[in-house]
Order: sequence, then structure tokens, then C-alpha cells
Amino acid sequence: MCRFIAYIGKPIFADELLLKPKNSLMKQSYHALESEMTVNGDGFGIGWYNHFRRKEPALFRSIRPAWNDENLSYNASMIKTNCLLAHIRAATQGGVSIQNSHPFQYKEFLMMQNGGIKEFNRIKRKLINRLDDDTFEWIQGQTDTQYIFALFLTLTGELKKEKGSLTFDDLSNCLSETFAEIEEMKKEEKMDSPSLYNLVLTNGKVLIATRYSTRPEIETRSLHIASNTECYTSEDGFLVCKPLKGNEDSVLISSEILTENRESWKEVPENHVIMVEEDLSVKMKPLK
Amino acid sequence: MCRFIAYIGKPIFADELLLKPKNSLMKQSYHALESEMTVNGDGFGIGWYNHFRRKEPALFRSIRPAWNDENLSYNASMIKTNCLLAHIRAATQGGVSIQNSHPFQYKEFLMMQNGGIKEFNRIKRKLINRLDDDTFEWIQGQTDTQYIFALFLTLTGELKKEKGSLTFDDLSNCLSETFAEIEEMKKEEKMDSPSLYNLVLTNGKVLIATRYSTRPEIETRSLHIASNTECYTSEDGFLVCKPLKGNEDSVLISSEILTENRESWKEVPENHVIMVEEDLSVKMKPLK
Amino acid sequence: MCRFIAYIGKPIFADELLLKPKNSLMKQSYHALESEMTVNGDGFGIGWYNHFRRKEPALFRSIRPAWNDENLSYNASMIKTNCLLAHIRAATQGGVSIQNSHPFQYKEFLMMQNGGIKEFNRIKRKLINRLDDDTFEWIQGQTDTQYIFALFLTLTGELKKEKGSLTFDDLSNCLSETFAEIEEMKKEEKMDSPSLYNLVLTNGKVLIATRYSTRPEIETRSLHIASNTECYTSEDGFLVCKPLKGNEDSVLISSEILTENRESWKEVPENHVIMVEEDLSVKMKPLK
Amino acid sequence: MCRFIAYIGKPIFADELLLKPKNSLMKQSYHALESEMTVNGDGFGIGWYNHFRRKEPALFRSIRPAWNDENLSYNASMIKTNCLLAHIRAATQGGVSIQNSHPFQYKEFLMMQNGGIKEFNRIKRKLINRLDDDTFEWIQGQTDTQYIFALFLTLTGELKKEKGSLTFDDLSNCLSETFAEIEEMKKEEKMDSPSLYNLVLTNGKVLIATRYSTRPEIETRSLHIASNTECYTSEDGFLVCKPLKGNEDSVLISSEILTENRESWKEVPENHVIMVEEDLSVKMKPLK
Repeated sequence: MCRFIAYIGKPIFADELLLKPKNSLMKQSYHALESEMTVNGDGFGIGWYNHFRRKEPALFRSIRPAWNDENLSYNASMIKTNCLLAHIRAATQGGVSIQNSHPFQYKEFLMMQNGGIKEFNRIKRKLINRLDDDTFEWIQGQTDTQYIFALFLTLTGELKKEKGSLTFDDLSNCLSETFAEIEEMKKEEKMDSPSLYNLVLTNGKVLIATRYSTRPEIETRSLHIASNTECYTSEDGFLVCKPLKGNEDSVLISSEILTENRESWKEVPENHVIMVEEDLSVKMKPLK
Repeated sequence: MCRFIAYIGKPIFADELLLKPKNSLMKQSYHALESEMTVNGDGFGIGWYNHFRRKEPALFRSIRPAWNDENLSYNASMIKTNCLLAHIRAATQGGVSIQNSHPFQYKEFLMMQNGGIKEFNRIKRKLINRLDDDTFEWIQGQTDTQYIFALFLTLTGELKKEKGSLTFDDLSNCLSETFAEIEEMKKEEKMDSPSLYNLVLTNGKVLIATRYSTRPEIETRSLHIASNTECYTSEDGFLVCKPLKGNEDSVLISSEILTENRESWKEVPENHVIMVEEDLSVKMKPLK
Repeated sequence: MCRFIAYIGKPIFADELLLKPKNSLMKQSYHALESEMTVNGDGFGIGWYNHFRRKEPALFRSIRPAWNDENLSYNASMIKTNCLLAHIRAATQGGVSIQNSHPFQYKEFLMMQNGGIKEFNRIKRKLINRLDDDTFEWIQGQTDTQYIFALFLTLTGELKKEKGSLTFDDLSNCLSETFAEIEEMKKEEKMDSPSLYNLVLTNGKVLIATRYSTRPEIETRSLHIASNTECYTSEDGFLVCKPLKGNEDSVLISSEILTENRESWKEVPENHVIMVEEDLSVKMKPLK
Repeated sequence: MCRFIAYIGKPIFADELLLKPKNSLMKQSYHALESEMTVNGDGFGIGWYNHFRRKEPALFRSIRPAWNDENLSYNASMIKTNCLLAHIRAATQGGVSIQNSHPFQYKEFLMMQNGGIKEFNRIKRKLINRLDDDTFEWIQGQTDTQYIFALFLTLTGELKKEKGSLTFDDLSNCLSETFAEIEEMKKEEKMDSPSLYNLVLTNGKVLIATRYSTRPEIETRSLHIASNTECYTSEDGFLVCKPLKGNEDSVLISSEILTENRESWKEVPENHVIMVEEDLSVKMKPLK
């Protein structure tokens, strides 16, 4: 099981989120409080945007534990970004390699996941045959997340051909459709093991996050959101996300509550999708 | 383009082959004389057998250049084996990761390749759909070699079900059949780019090597064999393979001539297969 | 804080010690029961001997966590040795690099440590100036252990010049003398922080282990020994060290109790040295 | 022997220097035209400044070859900086580790070197004893460059105590003094092997580069400068540094000529120092 955070909003330096807080993701690589597995030491990755430079994000991924990678410590404080995804990994599907490290990038999109499709191999070929050539060739690793991402890209590609351009709702619908198609494939194979789609998708401007277990009575993953807030590291080392009135500065989504002031956070209900608009307004709705 | 050597015969310490010779594979990672690309710095791998312990080989693979990996230097002199495959990589298909490093292992088999299938992605899915479940799930990387290996394993699996057990000729035929099926797939896709199947397959007891270009007039790879010889590193640092009379001690197959006494070596003709039996007798025949 | 085990005795395959047991060192890299720090993910190393090949040991060290290194899993079952040292690291002194990974090797000797000298930098130069040229040049990393080892080597070098050859007692005395000289240097600098010399030294034939805290009332490290035993992995996955009568097959020394049958183990008392002779007889005596 | 480039001037994206040009440093990691060794595959490092964020530079260093590191390709285009140092390594002194990778950083300073002190170990302890505590403790690797840097830092520290603050000339004098003290140490040890001080030192605002061989008749290293120029990658993939009139936009210093328009470049004469002021004016003078 992995851990992740996603930030979108007012430009922020990456170390404010990743390193400085006492309860930062980097420290979570040692201890994940709401998780059963205590170590996420099988690599990490961050992806971030700088739209002044280009629409595609930058990526920095490593197969070493986040807590012992000098490059992360050295550079996080030099990265200023309005949108950052960070992921620490405890390997399940696919070996430990850069190619299997989240987030994954395709053109302007980033995706990362905490969870997975149990017994994924039983539908892998079916899924491969459903992909368009481009997205199939894009896959460079062995995680189920890359295949989920590839199917999403295939579906958006098809819809784009049809409609010319896509709205935010279209993206969100394609994501739901991705889950639906995969569950249909599982059904054809008579698989009733749970799928856990706790994932984040962004193009650096809008962001979608899902908390979705197909069998929540068996297994679920936590997901939290702090919105309408301003985030900074306090003098005593805690990440503080202060609720703001009147304006909305950022949205922070995380597998675990990151800040001391727990009242800033809402738990995302099971089987819901969160959509963060360019103006940072947040919509939450049930996933069908 | 990569480089490789394969040794089978009288048990030998790995450093005699890999480190000590002035013209060793490790030094070839810097300079490959018969190759256009001068650097093979995208990792390396060795696989070897100890049949007293078990039939499956051991593997040591790294994404660092062979010439700067301390572990290789430290350990090669402690590895005694009757059969060793070593490979240095210049990445073409698939990123640089352990999972993409040759040799590849499945049960008792090892395979490695110098060459590849141009535009492999165009037939990748066709090939995937041809694999049995087991060998498909076994694939953990993105190189074409792993897919060639997987198809070979599928074909041997099918033949084994039919016949109960397999002879050495069966293995060799399955390998030819593997090439034939892939070329058939390429034909269906109207691909006329060359495939270069310079590869080695072994179970630690018998060994098959092929030099096969589907369009040798466009591109070919060198392959050499030194058999009926005894190999050791001379005092002045050259790997010597002395031709022996009466008994046969080892067979050495290599993408480049490794020793100073060039007369020990024969160039394998284009589109031929070499079969080394358990008694180290060598059969060479044209590939259909 | 780190973890280690040392084995000397009847030749054994390394996986019996490192991988197969449910409570193996590799699994300890996740959870160290008797240790405060739960993760030892900053690399690992093993060193082992094969006296049929040469008197110097082989080394395999990695900066990745032991639990996710394929090469360790692949190869441990092919390593047969009468003497093996294994170490997992939680970095304290010196960054994460191969050069800082235990065990350290000089000619036929291996040394590894769990512990360290607090505020080591305050005496580092004094210690450097005490070393002979050879052992000073040998140092390739930044851990205090390498400096302790270098001082030990300097002292044995001096004694050897005097006496011609060294007995086992000489080695043991040089080790005590090493601690004494370092503590003397600390005294000159008015340092009263504790030194924790839980270390193992071997030449593959005899082995010395120490449990020594200069201020045990402030801090100590556990150390255990199982001797006069035969070790194997039971069917239910536990490392079993069965006490034997009449003959002595192996000695196992470990920072933590490794086996289920805790009665096989003795805790080494604070400030004691263990000396394992070539015939595997064990002497334990107080460190002055 | 290594390769390096240093850029100071108008803010530029790092990929313009490192990746896009056909003759970029990254491609030089394969082929260094003016160098005898063809491969610089033992890691690389870049350091850069963003004075809007802080005065200390960021560092990204890797032990993998520059040409196969995804993170470098992904991120260079997101780094905008007025001052960048980049270095590719062919290991000589010190093993391959992050801690031994150039550039080295101390507070606001970066230093990197192409060259070295032959038989450095013979004066290493003398040099260590000359360092102040702070800079001695700062050393985390084994390269001679770190020790040269540490001596320079000791000398500037002493001068600062004396004078309160340091001018650019003071820095330059301290660097000459560093070389002089080292050569004095060598003399005391009766060493007459050459020292090659081709190095760059910067605080992100001013920059010093030296080309200095103590025995140029035996061995020298090339160094080139392109100043009063504007640099960009042309459509056909060449780094172009166009000489400008009236204003000065950047200074580029490199071990090899990087651009096609060779007339932009001047060879730095043997035993000279280059000083680049904050206004990018360049002073070149003989090193005593």
C-alpha cells in the first residue's frame, strides 16, 4: 500500500509540503499512521507543473526510499509550482523500478494511485486489447495503474475524436467509464476480488480524485481533502492548512490527514469523486 | 547494440572470463571493437548455474555500467560455474531497469540477446495474445527479448503437453518456430524491417546460440565460437583458449572475438544455429 | 541503529540464514523487535568466505533496502560458506553509499558494527594521525566503523612487525587496545558521550564479537549468541538452532534473537568479548 | 578525466545547455572529442542558483551515466537559472558515489574540477590537519576536489575573521593561495607529479575558473570561454553562442568547445585564472 498527496492552488515551494512538516509525506515513508504497512520504502516520485514554461509536467522519481534521497532534500525547496503530486511506494504490482514509480505522465496528464486491482493479471490481456496503439506503446512498466491510465487515455481519445474537445465533466466521465469497463472485464472473468481505485488525475489546471472500492465491506483506503485553505509550515514544524473565508487558495488531497488542525480536513466518503475546478471550487459526487 | 558471452564446460571461476582478461567483456563495456556503438553502459547482467545446489540459475543484474560496479569485481572471483551467460547493455527497446536487463530467467532457462526486432511495438499485442497465461504473467519488463523468450516458452509448453518430455532437438525446433511465428506476425502487419536474433538459450546443461538476421543484406550482428578448447587468463592478461585434441573442455560463444589467438575462433555464418550438447560436442546447422 | 548477524561453522547456504526464516534479517529490515527504530532501509551488505578459493572474503553491498533487492534474493541460495556476516543499515554517521555500507573488508578481515561513537568528528583527526599510511589510504567512506577498523589494523600491523605473527589472543587484545586508544582520545577532548562498540571481526576462521558500551547506564545495544547448535529453516519457516551434544557445529551471533527456540540463545553480558576459535569453541570474557 | 561546463548570465533553461544541443555535455558523456578517455559514465551532477528563493544552490547528482538518467531529461527543461554548473565524471580519485560527485556545495558556494592531484594520498593527512573543524567535518567523500575546496574554505574563513568581509579579489587570492599551500605540501613530501587545477568556483553571482597545470610540459587540460554572447539551441540542434555588441549577456566556460561557431570561443591559456564579475565583465590573468 502506498501513500500520496496532491496539491493544487496558489504557487507553493515543494519543501513546504514534502519536507518541512513534521508529519510530511517524506516522514510518512517511515510511519504511515492510518495504514497497516509501516514502511513505504520502495521508491517515490513527484510530478509538478510550471505552466509558464510548458503544459507538460516535470517528474522526479527514484527507487530509493524518499527519506534517504539527497536529491529530493536538495531540490524540493527550489521547486515552485501550482500543482504537485507526490507518491511513496510499497511495491505490490510490478517490481521496484523507475518505470513502475508513480506518478505516471502522458502528455499534460499525471496519474497516481493508492490501491490496485486484485488479481490484475487475469484481465491484463483483455485490457491490452482494448487500448489504442498510442497509449499501449506508452506503457513502460508493469503496474496496474499504468494500464488504468492507458484505458482512460484511450477513452478520452475516442471521445475527443467524436466531440472535438473535452470538458472537465468529460474527463471525469471517462474516468468513471474506465472503472466500469475494467469491472466489466472482471465480471467476464468471474472475478469478485475488490478493486481499490484511490487515484488522482490532473493536467495541472483541474484535478480529479477518487475514493472507490468495489467491495468496501472487504477493503477500503482512506482519502482526505482540505480545501478553502492556505497551507504553510508553522514554526513548530507542523503543516497548517488554515480555513479561509471569502477566497479559496488551494486544495490538498491526501491518503492521510497531514496537518495538526484536523478540523481543516474532511474524509472523502467511500465511492465518491472529487473534482477541483480551475478556480479551485470543489465538487464532490458519488461514483456510479 | 549489446555484447554478450556464453560459457559452458569445465567449471571455471567467473573472473577468468569477465574480469582478468585484457579484452574481457567488462572492458568491452568501454570499447567494443567490432561494434559501431562504443559504449555499453546501460547496465549488465550475469546468470550462472550450480547444479549441485539446484537446477535454476542465479542472476546478478545491475543498471550501472559493468566497469564501475564494485559488486561485480568483488564477487566474480567467488563464482564457480560450468555455465555462465554475461551481457552488457546499450539500451534500445525498454528503459534502463533491472527488469529490462539480460539475461532473463524462467525456471531452469536463461536467455539473452544482442539484436532485436525493429518496430517491435507493431506486433507486440499479437504476440501477447499468442502467449499462454503463465509465460505472459512472467514478463516483468519491456524488452523484445522477454517476449521472444515468452513465445519460446509457450511453444515448448505446448509441445511438452503433447509429447511428455522434450529432447534437445525439440528445444532447438521450438526456437526456430518462435522466429518463424514472429516473422509471420510481421508479415501480417506488412513489416519488412529486419529482425536480428543473435541470442543464447541454455538450461545450464545444453546451450543453443543463433546468428540470424532476416535481412542480412541490410543489417547483421557478429557471432563467434571457440570450442574444443581450454580457457584461462595468461600471465600477460590475455584470455587464452587453447585448442585441445582428444577431449573437449569448454565452448565459448561471444558477440566478439575475446582472445588473442584468433585462430581458436570460428565466425558463426549468417542464419545458423549452434547446438552444444551435454558432452560439449557442437553441432552447427542452417536456420530455415 | 543497525542490525547484524554473524555465522561461523559448518558450511551453510546463505538463504538458510538470510531469506527463508520468518524472522530473518531481511525481514528485520522492516521490523526490528528489540530496536527502537523500526526501519533499516538504508542499504545492506553481506560478506562471506570460501577458503577453497582464496582467503579474502567476497562482498555484496547495496544502497537499496534489503527487502527490495532482487540480487540478494536471487543469489543468497547459491552462496555456500562457512562464515558469513550480514548487516542492514539505518544511516547515522556518513551518507548512504556503497562505500559506507558494512561489512568493511581489508585483506582477509571483515568488520561490521551496530552502534558508534557519539560526536565522532571531535576525535576524527586525532585518529587519522594515529593510523599507518596503508590503513589510512584504505578508508573509502565516512563511517566511524571504518576508522575503528583502520586503527585496529594499524595496531595489529605494529604488533606483527614486533612479533612476526599474531595469535588469536593478539587479535583480541588489539581490538581492546583499539577501544582503549579511542576512549583515551575522547578523554583528551573531554568528551563523555557514550561509545557503543557492538561489533564483529573475523578472518573467516576465527571470530570476535564485542558488546561494549562505555556508559551502559545511558545507552546499550543488545547482542546474543547461539552456539553448540545446528541451524536450519524449519518447514513452518522458523530458523531453528538446535542445541547439540558432543559436537559443535556452528556459532551464530546476532543483534537480536533470531530463532523461535529462545532457549538456544544467551544474551551476551554488557562489556564482554566473545572469541570463537577455529574448532568453534567459544570463550566469553569481560572487556577491560 | 571529467568534463564540465559553467554558465553565468541571463536566466536560461537548463535544457538549452545540457540536452538540446547536438554537442551537449550529456552527449559528451559518450564522446569527448578533446579528451583521451571516450566515456564519462561514472555519474554526473548539476548545481544551480535561484537567488529569488535563497542564496544556496540546488544540487542534482547521480551515479548513473548522464545519458541514461530519466530524471535529468525530465527536469532540465523546468530549471531556470542565471548560474549553472554541470559535470560528468570518469572516476579517478574516490569510488563512484553521490558523495563523490561534482559539483560540491558548501553554503552558497559550488566547486567542480576536471583534473586532480596525482598521488594525493601522500599529502592528504597534512592537508586534513590544515583544515578548520567546520570544513573538515563538511567533507563527505573521498575526492581530492573536496579537500581542495575545504582548504579554500578554511583560508577564506581565516581571512574573513581578519577583514570582516571579502571582496571578489580576496576569493581569487584565496584560491591561488590554496594551490600554493598544496604545492608546498607536495614539495615537503618531495612529490614532483603534476597537479591539474582546472576548476570552477562560484557563489551564483561571481565565478572563478582556473586552468592550471603545475607541470604543463607533462600534462594539461583544455579550458575554453565564450563571453559577451547570447546562447541558444538553433533549429538544427547546435548550441549557438552569438557574440554580442554593446551588452554582455552571459559567460560560458567549458572543458571543451561546445558550439559550432568556434570563433565565439577563446582557449584559456595555461596557468591562468578567469574572473567573471556580477556585471559579467571578464578578467583573465596569469596564476602565479
